[in-house]
Amino acid sequence: MDANKKLGMLRNLMAEYRLDAYVVSNADPHFSEYLPERYRQIRWLTNFSGSNALVLVTNDQALLWTDGRYFVQAEKEIAGSEFKMMKMATPGYPNIYQMIGKLLPEGRRLGVDRAILSQADYEKYEEISNKNGIDLVDDHDLISEIWTDRPEITKNPAYVHDLKFAGKSAQEKIQELRDLLKEAGAQGTIISSLVDVAWLYNIRGTDIANNPVVTAYAYVDQTSANIFIDEEKLSLEILDHFKENGVDYLKYSEVFAKANNLRNMTLLLDKKTSARSIFKVLDDSVKVIDSIDLTTKLKAIKNDLEIKNQKHAYIKDGVALTKFIYWLKHHENIETEDEYTVGEKLEEFRKAQEYYVEPSFDTIAAYKENAAMMHYKASQAGAKKLAREGFLLVDSGGQYYDGTTDTTRTIALGDLSDEEKKDFTLTLKGHMDLMNTVFLQGTTGFALDAICRRPLWLNRSDYKSGTGHGVGFFLGVHEGPQSISPRPGGAALETSMVVTIEPGVYKEGKHGIRTENVAIVVEDEKNLDGQFLSFECMSFVPIDIDAIDPSLLNDQDKKYINDYHKAVYEKISDYLTREEAAWLKEVTRAI
Amino acid sequence: MDANKKLGMLRNLMAEYRLDAYVVSNADPHFSEYLPERYRQIRWLTNFSGSNALVLVTNDQALLWTDGRYFVQAEKEIAGSEFKMMKMATPGYPNIYQMIGKLLPEGRRLGVDRAILSQADYEKYEEISNKNGIDLVDDHDLISEIWTDRPEITKNPAYVHDLKFAGKSAQEKIQELRDLLKEAGAQGTIISSLVDVAWLYNIRGTDIANNPVVTAYAYVDQTSANIFIDEEKLSLEILDHFKENGVDYLKYSEVFAKANNLRNMTLLLDKKTSARSIFKVLDDSVKVIDSIDLTTKLKAIKNDLEIKNQKHAYIKDGVALTKFIYWLKHHENIETEDEYTVGEKLEEFRKAQEYYVEPSFDTIAAYKENAAMMHYKASQAGAKKLAREGFLLVDSGGQYYDGTTDTTRTIALGDLSDEEKKDFTLTLKGHMDLMNTVFLQGTTGFALDAICRRPLWLNRSDYKSGTGHGVGFFLGVHEGPQSISPRPGGAALETSMVVTIEPGVYKEGKHGIRTENVAIVVEDEKNLDGQFLSFECMSFVPIDIDAIDPSLLNDQDKKYINDYHKAVYEKISDYLTREEAAWLKEVTRAI
Repeated sequence: MDANKKLGMLRNLMAEYRLDAYVVSNADPHFSEYLPERYRQIRWLTNFSGSNALVLVTNDQALLWTDGRYFVQAEKEIAGSEFKMMKMATPGYPNIYQMIGKLLPEGRRLGVDRAILSQADYEKYEEISNKNGIDLVDDHDLISEIWTDRPEITKNPAYVHDLKFAGKSAQEKIQELRDLLKEAGAQGTIISSLVDVAWLYNIRGTDIANNPVVTAYAYVDQTSANIFIDEEKLSLEILDHFKENGVDYLKYSEVFAKANNLRNMTLLLDKKTSARSIFKVLDDSVKVIDSIDLTTKLKAIKNDLEIKNQKHAYIKDGVALTKFIYWLKHHENIETEDEYTVGEKLEEFRKAQEYYVEPSFDTIAAYKENAAMMHYKASQAGAKKLAREGFLLVDSGGQYYDGTTDTTRTIALGDLSDEEKKDFTLTLKGHMDLMNTVFLQGTTGFALDAICRRPLWLNRSDYKSGTGHGVGFFLGVHEGPQSISPRPGGAALETSMVVTIEPGVYKEGKHGIRTENVAIVVEDEKNLDGQFLSFECMSFVPIDIDAIDPSLLNDQDKKYINDYHKAVYEKISDYLTREEAAWLKEVTRAI
Repeated sequence: MDANKKLGMLRNLMAEYRLDAYVVSNADPHFSEYLPERYRQIRWLTNFSGSNALVLVTNDQALLWTDGRYFVQAEKEIAGSEFKMMKMATPGYPNIYQMIGKLLPEGRRLGVDRAILSQADYEKYEEISNKNGIDLVDDHDLISEIWTDRPEITKNPAYVHDLKFAGKSAQEKIQELRDLLKEAGAQGTIISSLVDVAWLYNIRGTDIANNPVVTAYAYVDQTSANIFIDEEKLSLEILDHFKENGVDYLKYSEVFAKANNLRNMTLLLDKKTSARSIFKVLDDSVKVIDSIDLTTKLKAIKNDLEIKNQKHAYIKDGVALTKFIYWLKHHENIETEDEYTVGEKLEEFRKAQEYYVEPSFDTIAAYKENAAMMHYKASQAGAKKLAREGFLLVDSGGQYYDGTTDTTRTIALGDLSDEEKKDFTLTLKGHMDLMNTVFLQGTTGFALDAICRRPLWLNRSDYKSGTGHGVGFFLGVHEGPQSISPRPGGAALETSMVVTIEPGVYKEGKHGIRTENVAIVVEDEKNLDGQFLSFECMSFVPIDIDAIDPSLLNDQDKKYINDYHKAVYEKISDYLTREEAAWLKEVTRAI
């Protein structure tokens, strides 16, 4: 069925429900970073497969919003349909709220699906509706009515994330959450975010690719802890686990009855990750504190065993990546490989590692000018062939029971231009300047961001992305509340938080370079000036010294690289073949 | 009359007006950084002379709040009186709003003086009063009733700031303000800030020490421009100047009638720098946009002639400071000098410079451990004697018709410890790292702050102040909206803005070090990554190479210092005696 036919069916339904406009949002009820198949409604409706999308349909308009990463792709994918692309954050293109104000006269009816609309977004539609005298109707899931073979919510089994990995029992975590709730002046909380539910109850699953989460909600107050989950997901083991930890399970859909039955209390809810459908059923006697989920704060601070485990995971991941780079550097027919096949090969190396489950995100293997597109992902068919020249950028990570990894290396496949070497070296300088900095407790990643950019800025170069993000523990590869970014906000960096450091240079039509390691925030000296913190690097993968222009490095830079490479050799070489280890010795030599 | 007697009189008056508590704030009606004598009511009442102070008096309490800079001084100055010191931002000490909530039961009456209370602060008293059922009464200036010899508002003459200095006529500035008002959706604005009024109308005066402002208000809309000013201040020259520029003058006190007569319009007012007394008289048909004064934004961007002029002012100031350092270094009986006398000597050198008017703030000359107190100011009586050892820190600046200067040098008077040299060198590294950085348009000083601290952080050292502030043009030495600070906020740094860069090391009981130059933001390269900006240093004064530990410097650091010193010699030596020039050549030699 093509997009226009689906659109016709959607409009018929809209007419039936007397809706003059209908919004389709690209979300699941848990506002997950990666969507399960059931909630890829925009791809189903429009063919557009990008991650950032929003659709507005009226009787004579079919509009699809997306951002600059996807302009080319979206045009291609919606070609031939009635859908028209709207560019987000681009002059000349109104956003969806402005467009609603423009298209709908007073008295018209705007439909949204409250199940997949966060309360925060709902309030924006409410504001524009009130302002324009539009009726906002939030109770129609039109997509399910026309998408007859819509995938069900997955019934994949959940499993216990063993205490030897998690380091802290669900019971202890629930108690920590209760303490924070008390501090915040809230009696209870409903958690929709799947990574938060999985972390809190020490469970994992396979409902979403790259993200070992379980489709479930949590409710916690001072006396009870509930999980709302489909029974099919539950094994005897997991039932025992819940019992041991004082967790009562209820049906997945019971979360709404639970919310509806709460009375005379203050509930902590994150409006950005909680659906309108939860807010809507709350009794008037329930007061809401809008706050980031307290579990998000708790899980960002890794416990001692998590720290030990994830360090081990980074060693294993470093072994896989080092073997992969060895393989690339020694491949006798590199021309037979392309961006897609090398990703497959890397997956082989990871699969050989203990506790490996799956990639933590779709591997980015981008050759030469393709690497200048920051979110490039090669399709099997369209992948670029490799050759013995230029850079291959590989940004990848693994989900291990004992940690989530994320590392980028830019690898010289052969000769490089002076410009490529210069850009590689300046990227590395920025990376090192931030990784080896010391900072005062209370400092945010926003305040540190410029340290990483400065060596590039001095060369009049900048990268249009953040510098780093938090990383979960066998959960999301992007987890807050901390980040390192030129956009204000973000939490202060605290001891035992994990962040990536990943500056880069991206030159359209030429090359893309990024060097990314993951660091854990550690306590440093405390003196009269305050408590200082610093970063401990956890990633151990050789940085390609073939790509370095040493004339751009000062003595401290060289010392950093040599110390780092010494550590790489010490930590990784034992797990390599004799040939690989000999090569690693050579490529980690002092410069 | 001692403090307790004044307090008694104040309480009698409070009883007469049935006030259960009374607030005395440390402000003038223009919320000036430095207060004219008439508005030093807290010093008059309590003897406390610090700049940050707030008083609350009830029948049985007399409380004085101040901040950490002044704890020791305040205790000393209020000793023997009933006043009790309250430490601002210190655990265990409620702030004034909390204290009001604690001390006043429902139905009691709280008095404030609306003439010296900003609307922003008034709203905080209003909030706590509403919350606690307290009556807030804002129409009693009790201080004037008991301070019988209270100084009048000064009648010092105003004068025209010549176009050859200001670079832009008042008429042009008024037009720019009108354009910004239109953009902001406001029909008019009342400006209370004296530096803003002086800048807008190109007038100056002598009403406040160190700040060449005139006591006046401005009102501007699309068709009229008013100044509210005492007639005694006006000469024929200034009347002509007003006429030429389309400015109508009214009596100083007429500003309230003007505010009261406005109807059916949107008025732009800065709640932080506008008194409650202005807000109170506004008609209900007047809508207020609370915004930083638009003139503050306009005057932060220096015009071409201002830039040329202020560069010249910095050369003159550099000559004065260089001569001063020569004098210090060659003084044969340094033991006869103290922190106070060297400040007097420096003033002599400045006075010899063309267009010099007065210091731009009270000179800080702090010897050895005194320099660890960041806001130390030596009194004539208590000044520390100098000797041929350790550091003398001198932070000073001048008001010239062609610019306002602010420079700090830390000067070795003799032998230094290794620790002193190390701290001096790391301070210099931070200073250089920021001064020679390049950054993307849109970057705030907050985002750059860590660049300056990093070399100190690496040594586990931090300074408890901002890194830099904006500087006015023959006006305030501290002017926003830009700053370089670890506190979020502050405007993006734009081309032709001026900022100081002044990191330091402060070790209690040991030494204090600060190196401060002033820079102007200049356009740098524009390319696909965006418009880059950089700093051009305007201060030219030798940095004491006797105090540098070269082993802590890399090649780029040394190049920076050598290039800077070459420029110092080139720009300053022509204005020195032959002996001074020969010495300058020596102390600006390459290291």
